[in-house]
Amino acid sequence: MPAANTNQRIDAKRLWDLLMSMAEIGATPKGGVRRLTLSDVDRRGRDRFRVECEAAGLKVRVDAIGNMFARREGRDPKRLPVLFGSHLDSQPSGGKFDGALGVLAGLEVMRSLNDLGIVTEAPIELVNWTDEEGSRFGHSLMGSGVWSGVFSLDKAYSLKDVDGVTVESALSGIGYRGDQQAAAFAADAYFELHIEQGPILEQETKQIGIVTGAQAQVWYDARTVGQDSHAGTTPPSTRKDALVCAARVIDLVDRMMRARGEDGRGTVGQLLVLPNSRNVVPGEVRFSVEFRHPSDAEVDRLDREFRRAAPAIARDCGVELELETLFKIPAQPFDPACIDLVRQGAAKLGYSAREIVSGAGHDAVYVARHVPTAMIFTPCKDGLSHNEAESIQPEEAEAGCQVLFEAVLARANRSLA
Amino acid sequence: MPAANTNQRIDAKRLWDLLMSMAEIGATPKGGVRRLTLSDVDRRGRDRFRVECEAAGLKVRVDAIGNMFARREGRDPKRLPVLFGSHLDSQPSGGKFDGALGVLAGLEVMRSLNDLGIVTEAPIELVNWTDEEGSRFGHSLMGSGVWSGVFSLDKAYSLKDVDGVTVESALSGIGYRGDQQAAAFAADAYFELHIEQGPILEQETKQIGIVTGAQAQVWYDARTVGQDSHAGTTPPSTRKDALVCAARVIDLVDRMMRARGEDGRGTVGQLLVLPNSRNVVPGEVRFSVEFRHPSDAEVDRLDREFRRAAPAIARDCGVELELETLFKIPAQPFDPACIDLVRQGAAKLGYSAREIVSGAGHDAVYVARHVPTAMIFTPCKDGLSHNEAESIQPEEAEAGCQVLFEAVLARANRSLA
Repeated sequence: MPAANTNQRIDAKRLWDLLMSMAEIGATPKGGVRRLTLSDVDRRGRDRFRVECEAAGLKVRVDAIGNMFARREGRDPKRLPVLFGSHLDSQPSGGKFDGALGVLAGLEVMRSLNDLGIVTEAPIELVNWTDEEGSRFGHSLMGSGVWSGVFSLDKAYSLKDVDGVTVESALSGIGYRGDQQAAAFAADAYFELHIEQGPILEQETKQIGIVTGAQAQVWYDARTVGQDSHAGTTPPSTRKDALVCAARVIDLVDRMMRARGEDGRGTVGQLLVLPNSRNVVPGEVRFSVEFRHPSDAEVDRLDREFRRAAPAIARDCGVELELETLFKIPAQPFDPACIDLVRQGAAKLGYSAREIVSGAGHDAVYVARHVPTAMIFTPCKDGLSHNEAESIQPEEAEAGCQVLFEAVLARANRSLA
Repeated sequence: MPAANTNQRIDAKRLWDLLMSMAEIGATPKGGVRRLTLSDVDRRGRDRFRVECEAAGLKVRVDAIGNMFARREGRDPKRLPVLFGSHLDSQPSGGKFDGALGVLAGLEVMRSLNDLGIVTEAPIELVNWTDEEGSRFGHSLMGSGVWSGVFSLDKAYSLKDVDGVTVESALSGIGYRGDQQAAAFAADAYFELHIEQGPILEQETKQIGIVTGAQAQVWYDARTVGQDSHAGTTPPSTRKDALVCAARVIDLVDRMMRARGEDGRGTVGQLLVLPNSRNVVPGEVRFSVEFRHPSDAEVDRLDREFRRAAPAIARDCGVELELETLFKIPAQPFDPACIDLVRQGAAKLGYSAREIVSGAGHDAVYVARHVPTAMIFTPCKDGLSHNEAESIQPEEAEAGCQVLFEAVLARANRSLA
C-alpha cells in the first residue's frame, strides 16, 4: 500500500460545505444549532449522515442505543477496524462544530480515500455516538458510555426528558433503535477530532492540539444551611447567612484553582438560593463544585484541601455545610502510539502543534477504556463553545481533518509484524 | 374622663383566642398562615374582622384600595380620630402574628373600652391596611402607600399577579373595593403594634420595643457580566467568571455591614446565575443588594463606599458590574409625643422596654408622613418571621396590647389646651 504523503489532501471546500449544510439542520436565528439528541431534528441530521455515508459506499449499522457505525472495508478482512468519529447532537443553544466537526471530517476522510483510490489494510469505521451532550436526558456521553459498559443499556433506556419521554421511546420514535448489540467490540484504534472548546491553541496560535489524555476530575454537590431571617431586622451577630458562606466557598474554589497555575480548574457553575427573596437573609444555598487537573495526585490534593477548608469557612460563618462527592475520576491517558500518529501527522504537514490535555469530557474518554485512543484538537474562536457564537475558520477545519486523515491512514496501514 | 390606670386591663385570653381563631383562616399544615392579599382567604379574614367590629359597635367603612376603618365615636365630635391597626394579609408561607397581632389587639382595645364603659374624648379608628406584604402583586405597603399618596390609586389598580389578575379586579372580586376615597385624612395620631421580626427584644429579655422610627435604606439591582466558557477547558488566566465576582461583592456587603456593629444591615437576598450549568463558567449573575442603618449619614457612607468598592472588585475579576439604585430612602423618625406615650405606657405597667429602630418596612412608615405616629414591638421567638414557625407567647401579645391600650387611651383623652 502507498504510505500517506503530502500530496494526499482532503477536499477542504467539500468539508466546509458539508459542515455548513449540516448546520442548517436545527439552525438557530443567532447562527447556532439546536439539535437535541433523539429529537426529530437529530433524526434529520442522522438521516442526512446515513445518506451521505451510503453514497460514499459505506455500510451503516446502528446499535441498540443508536450509535451509528459506517464501515469501509480494508484489504485484510482479519484485521480489527480503525474507528474515528464524534457526535452530531448539540447543546440546546449550541454551535455548528462541537461534535459535527469530528463526524463530518470523518466522512471527508472516507470520501478522500475514495477519490484517491486508496484501500486501507484494515477496515475503517466512522462513528456517530448518541447523546454526547446530555442536555435532554441529563446524562452526557450516553452512547459511548453504554458502548463502553460504563452504565447499562437498561439504565440509559429508562432516562426521561422533562416531558417524561424515555430514551427508549425517543430512539424508537426516530427509528434509530438499531439491531446491533450496544457493547464494545474489538477495534484497533479510535481517533476523535474535536474543537478545543478552550482558548489555549488560539492564544498560542497553534493549529493542532495533540491530545495526550483527559483530566482527572472531582465533582461535588454542596449545600449550605443557615437560617432564613428578615434582612431589615436581623443584626449581624445573629445572622446565619447561607449565601455569604457559599460566596466564601466560591472564592476558595477560585483561589485553589489559581494556586495550581494554568493547569488547574475549579468552578462553581450552578447555584440556587432559598428562599431567594430580596429582603430575606438566605437560609439555604445549593451549588455545584468541581475541580480538574491533568494530574491524579493534584486532584487528590485539591479534594483533601477542599474538604478541609470549606467546612472551616462554614464554621466561621455559623452555617452548616453538606458536601457530597458525586464522582472522582482519574485522569484518562490516551494511547502513546495513537498520540504519536497525531504528532507525526501534524509534523509531516507542517502544522504548528502542542500537546494538550482535554479539559472537557469526550466520547473518546470512555472509548479509551477498551480501544487505543487519541484525539486531535483544533482552535475555536475565543475558546467559545456550548454557545451559538462558537466559530472556527475553514482552514482550521481543514488542518484538523488532514491530520485525522494521516492518523487513520497510518494506523490502518501499519505493519503488524 | 378617667385617666387610664393599671386596673384597666385588656382581656388577654379573649385576645389570644381571637388570634388563634383568625389563624384558622388560611391555616397551613405546618402551623403557619397563607392569607394572600385580596384572595378569597383574605376576604374571609376581612369578613370575620368586619363582623366582630360591628358586633363591638364599630362603624366600618372601606376605601377604594380596600383599607378598612372601624370607628368608635368619642365624646367630642370635633376632635380628630386616633388611628391604630396593622394588616391581615400574610406572606405565602407566613405566620399567625405578622400583621394580625396589630389588628386584633386593636379590636381587643375596642372591646376592653366597651367593657370598661370608657368613652374617649376623641374618636378612635382601627385600621386594616390592604396588602402590606406585597407577595401577590409585587408592591408592599400598597394600601398605606396609596392612602399616603406615595403612589397613585391607578398605579395600584393596574398591578397584576402571576395569573394576570389586576388589583382592581381582585378588589372587586372579593367585594372590598370601597366607596371611600383612598387618601390620607386628618388624624390625630397613628399607633401600630407589631412583632419585632428580629431577635433583639428576645435576646435582651425586653417585653416592649419603643419604636423610635424606621431605618434609612438603599437598595440596588446588581449584574455582573463576564463570559460563559467551558469549565473544563478554560484556564484561570482567561476566565471571566461572573459568579466569582458576585461572590466577592457578597463578601464585601457582609464585611461593610459588620464594620457598622450591630446597627448595620447589608444583605444579598436574591441571586440568579446564568447559564447555571454545572460545567459552564458563569457568564452572568443578577443579584439584589441592600443596606440599612438608623442613620441617614451612615447609609450615605455605605452607599458611597459600596459604589466605589464593588466596581473595584469587578475590575480585579475582569468582569463588568452594573449597579442600579432602586431607591434610597431616608430614615423615618416617629413622632416624639407618640413615642413618649408608648414609653409611658410600658413604664406604668412595669414592662421591661428598650428603644428600637424598625428594620422592617411597616404601614406606619408611610402613615407617619401625614400623621404623628409611633409603633410598639413585642418579641417573637428566635426573631423569626415571614415563616410558618413564627411564634409568640400569649403574655407577649397581652403586654403589647396593654401598651397599645394605654397609648391610644392617653392620646384620645389628651388635653388640647
